[in-house]
Amino acid sequence: MSVPELSTEALESILEFTVALARTAGDLILEGSEAIQSVTASKDVNEKKNSVDLVTEYDVRVEELVKQELARKYPDFKFIGEESYSAGSRPPLTDEPTFCVDPIDGTTNFVHGFPFVCISLGLIYKRRPVLGVIFNPFLNHLYTGVKGKSSYLTKGNSQPLKLPLASPPKPLASLSQALIAIEWGSDRGEKTITSKSGSFGRLAGNPAQDVKGGKMAHSLRSLGSAALNFAMVAQGGLDLYWEVGCWPWDVCAGIVIAEGAGGIVTGSHDVFSATSSGVSFGDVTEEILTGRKYIVVRAIGETQGETCVEAQKRIIQEFYSSVEDVEAN
Amino acid sequence: MSVPELSTEALESILEFTVALARTAGDLILEGSEAIQSVTASKDVNEKKNSVDLVTEYDVRVEELVKQELARKYPDFKFIGEESYSAGSRPPLTDEPTFCVDPIDGTTNFVHGFPFVCISLGLIYKRRPVLGVIFNPFLNHLYTGVKGKSSYLTKGNSQPLKLPLASPPKPLASLSQALIAIEWGSDRGEKTITSKSGSFGRLAGNPAQDVKGGKMAHSLRSLGSAALNFAMVAQGGLDLYWEVGCWPWDVCAGIVIAEGAGGIVTGSHDVFSATSSGVSFGDVTEEILTGRKYIVVRAIGETQGETCVEAQKRIIQEFYSSVEDVEAN
Repeated sequence: MSVPELSTEALESILEFTVALARTAGDLILEGSEAIQSVTASKDVNEKKNSVDLVTEYDVRVEELVKQELARKYPDFKFIGEESYSAGSRPPLTDEPTFCVDPIDGTTNFVHGFPFVCISLGLIYKRRPVLGVIFNPFLNHLYTGVKGKSSYLTKGNSQPLKLPLASPPKPLASLSQALIAIEWGSDRGEKTITSKSGSFGRLAGNPAQDVKGGKMAHSLRSLGSAALNFAMVAQGGLDLYWEVGCWPWDVCAGIVIAEGAGGIVTGSHDVFSATSSGVSFGDVTEEILTGRKYIVVRAIGETQGETCVEAQKRIIQEFYSSVEDVEAN
Repeated sequence: MSVPELSTEALESILEFTVALARTAGDLILEGSEAIQSVTASKDVNEKKNSVDLVTEYDVRVEELVKQELARKYPDFKFIGEESYSAGSRPPLTDEPTFCVDPIDGTTNFVHGFPFVCISLGLIYKRRPVLGVIFNPFLNHLYTGVKGKSSYLTKGNSQPLKLPLASPPKPLASLSQALIAIEWGSDRGEKTITSKSGSFGRLAGNPAQDVKGGKMAHSLRSLGSAALNFAMVAQGGLDLYWEVGCWPWDVCAGIVIAEGAGGIVTGSHDVFSATSSGVSFGDVTEEILTGRKYIVVRAIGETQGETCVEAQKRIIQEFYSSVEDVEAN
């Protein structure tokens, strides 16, 4: 079977369709949230189960809706998501167009009614992310990107805003001037927690006040949604986001949106070291896309003697020299 | 001089005025943000200085605007804020009506264009917070509260939503089911950073996977605005927020809004222990309001044999038994 050719026009048409679909999915997510928030507080321990059941129910319903609509419109395209992976089959990537979707990213937030929840809808083609739609129905914020084009944020019914919002993008001299997104994740074992809390403490800590290896970052933020962290880096509201343990569908859309805003994405400490010696820095290969370790840095304004990409590489080097690698469990 | 009597009607009238003022201040905050985002990336190190200068400029401009308008309308009311404190005079609280205002809460976010920034406008009367207005102009989210009345969230031009959004409020069996706001703060010395990263690691860590004292919280969030953390706890999107080192104007409005949503606020480990043996648990005394150590827990649905307040006290006890106290530097 030959791989269909995806022209820029084809991608624009897919974007239009997937944006409408993301908004429809958003309505269903809001419906789910209302259902969860109005679960009657029962008198026994089943309350938690009820909320979690509802989360699972809406996770499945949103995924089914999206899968069906995509299959109807694009019957030849493949689909990967949490369900297909957790069902035990881990189909390798192919060159064919493949939707890569997290129906509800930020499920812990969804349970709690913390309004950082989104649908993350990406498209992979020839093993590279090429299209991304992230929609947060709680804030009515829509992020879109198509490979090779600019990315946009649309708030409500306003005109789309080109990303990053700061134009030209600001310089970033070092991590000491950075606002950094980190997450506590789902691996809460001793090894990961000790490593992470040590790394986070170094990022925040002041070397002049006895914090060994301290970077004195402006601060650290945790929103609880990988997709929205990517989107916020694309927007320029965060300088950098690092995470280990999330999946391709959490980041696929965000990668395209970040790249279209001048951001750069790469993988783990090792992958980054390897790419840093080659020509492929910033190329999100299949290894990086499926590697479950991601770092994204915003567009950085050029300064004398340093391009944007050089500055991004410098920031990643500084980050990886102070933060320990952890396992993606 | 006799203390003017503030009736409920008077408070409602002050609320109307301060809401309008907060929206006006919000416009100025947005103007400042655009100015900061459009600072031309200069070729030298002065870029940072320019942004920070602009932040300071708008911080002062917003405070001046608010102070002037409040003084014009309420000439007999006092005013405390960052400027009056940092000017060296720390007037003690009196029984008189005293506005307690942070013109821009979340200044680090403001610098970076991370859209969790607000004006926090509170009123203290007879040494207790009695009115609160928190407005985030980036999301157009307005939170309001008046002592003894329900609190509300108004999104854009929509109808005000009574807080908490979940009705009735959900139970909270333990920290293991909680979404907790923590902040890295501005004290980055070795002692505080080591203590905090250890405490945060225990909150997140799984005791079944060798994290000693691990609470395995659902997760930890960091938004970078004390006022908006209070508001989010009031809303029910966060279960608990703890911070050491912020000031009365960061929390005054949030305290009223949280209390009006059924939340409870108290102070440090010590103050809490003291109040827990008395009748005053939940009374934000002058000692707590000015004590720079705060904990707020959302409304918790009653369960068999436990009232909301009993559950809140239980959660605070669990929290303070696993998190170390730190100095408010």
